[in-house]
Amino acid sequence: MGEQHYWLQVHEKAKQWIQEAAQLLKESLKEQIDVEFKSSYDDLVTNMDRKIEQYLIERIHEHYPDHRIVSEEGFGDEVSSLDGIIWLLDPIDGTMNFVHQQRHFAISIGVYENGVGRVGLIKDVMADDLYHCIKGEGAYINDKRLPQLENKKLNESIIAINATWVNDNKRIDPEIMRPIARKSRGTRSYGSAAIELAYIAAGTLDAYFTMRLSPWDYGAGLILIEEVGGKATRVDGAPIDLLKQNSLLVANPGIHQEITQHIKAEIAEGKFIEKPVD
Amino acid sequence: MGEQHYWLQVHEKAKQWIQEAAQLLKESLKEQIDVEFKSSYDDLVTNMDRKIEQYLIERIHEHYPDHRIVSEEGFGDEVSSLDGIIWLLDPIDGTMNFVHQQRHFAISIGVYENGVGRVGLIKDVMADDLYHCIKGEGAYINDKRLPQLENKKLNESIIAINATWVNDNKRIDPEIMRPIARKSRGTRSYGSAAIELAYIAAGTLDAYFTMRLSPWDYGAGLILIEEVGGKATRVDGAPIDLLKQNSLLVANPGIHQEITQHIKAEIAEGKFIEKPVD
Repeated sequence: MGEQHYWLQVHEKAKQWIQEAAQLLKESLKEQIDVEFKSSYDDLVTNMDRKIEQYLIERIHEHYPDHRIVSEEGFGDEVSSLDGIIWLLDPIDGTMNFVHQQRHFAISIGVYENGVGRVGLIKDVMADDLYHCIKGEGAYINDKRLPQLENKKLNESIIAINATWVNDNKRIDPEIMRPIARKSRGTRSYGSAAIELAYIAAGTLDAYFTMRLSPWDYGAGLILIEEVGGKATRVDGAPIDLLKQNSLLVANPGIHQEITQHIKAEIAEGKFIEKPVD
Repeated sequence: MGEQHYWLQVHEKAKQWIQEAAQLLKESLKEQIDVEFKSSYDDLVTNMDRKIEQYLIERIHEHYPDHRIVSEEGFGDEVSSLDGIIWLLDPIDGTMNFVHQQRHFAISIGVYENGVGRVGLIKDVMADDLYHCIKGEGAYINDKRLPQLENKKLNESIIAINATWVNDNKRIDPEIMRPIARKSRGTRSYGSAAIELAYIAAGTLDAYFTMRLSPWDYGAGLILIEEVGGKATRVDGAPIDLLKQNSLLVANPGIHQEITQHIKAEIAEGKFIEKPVD
């Protein structure tokens, strides 16, 4: 079996599983809203997070027993190197939205081989949009090819940045990002990193900025971004460590450069920014 | 014909027209994306804004020749008093989203009688959600009744506030809203006031804050909010003047009080806030 054919098969399987998992989530949400939503918001989330994660892990283990899994709820493996094939799983990205809004949440699946992204899928469950790709084959939304990202300037761009990062906070001097937000055409915030990364890949947003994100949050997104010619680094332009929490700046190459140059200059002038953590 | 029966009929007609208009928008968007989107983002918007507004105005004039219309693109009437029946129309709320994202935009229709909201409709076109109400009959999403809003505290709430208002800007001292955003469970921003107001009515969001909005932007939203027991004022707690641009704070009564008390105290201490304008 040729290598690309192998990833085609992984992509097909993962696509089937993510759609099934989305259906489970949708159905459980309907029942739970009527029955026990108000009494136990937090339990529901925990239960559904776990249920979906176990659902996906079972299938991965069954079909790919030698692959390893890094997942939010911790039913996966202890992984300390990027050797071999690793699945980065987030069963519900945007947990607060899931509980509070019953929309704007996603399932995120990224498959890496020796640290190289091979297959990425993000399912925006309630919008019923699947963003998916195989490395080297282009990125898609619901089987429709996404174009390569255009290079834009900040002043013609919509950027995803939560108000947190221009407000007083402990991870970054808000004076660093305030001029960026002001110079942009507009800012948005949806509360799901996976959806925001998928939006970058689809050109719905032009840049995404955050100060701390885990591998399962960005695993799939980074692969999609690369397939459409986008750029993803830590916010100071340094490379992302796939085994760690990272800050993240994802954008088309034009804005990416414009923003990282600004941030690096601000850091050089002594403004505070959190160092990466494990 | 009984008075309530009259509004039932207006509601039915408006519902039909807003669905037809949404369909027109969706179809035109499909064609335009393929054909001439890149060359003329701004023309498309202008054309579709105008086309939808004229589509709605023609139908209102035909069926209700004595009603007046206040609309964004200016094909309506010069209105300087709230006497009689007035339609507040926004053919595309979230214009930047329409152009840039091809989602997250809405059509907004609010019908007032002598300044009292009677019929409100907001159509989130791409999500295919219609939020609608007749005064005194409850509010609905896609014909499903929305519950009355719960009173929540700020620290258990998701609030819609654009990063603009915690950033340096000319309408409000950002120090006023920074502690509010920090104290909330989270902030979101979608770039369409009509959708954000509909989200408040549906409990998807708990509070919405902005410094300047026109009557066609909030006309429908305020009626929906009232139907579910929410509260809407200017950000300092003063009443909204339906003929003017206003700042806007919309929320369940609990958070509304918590936020306005804070804002009023900050203003009393001398912090800057823009006065209402015509």
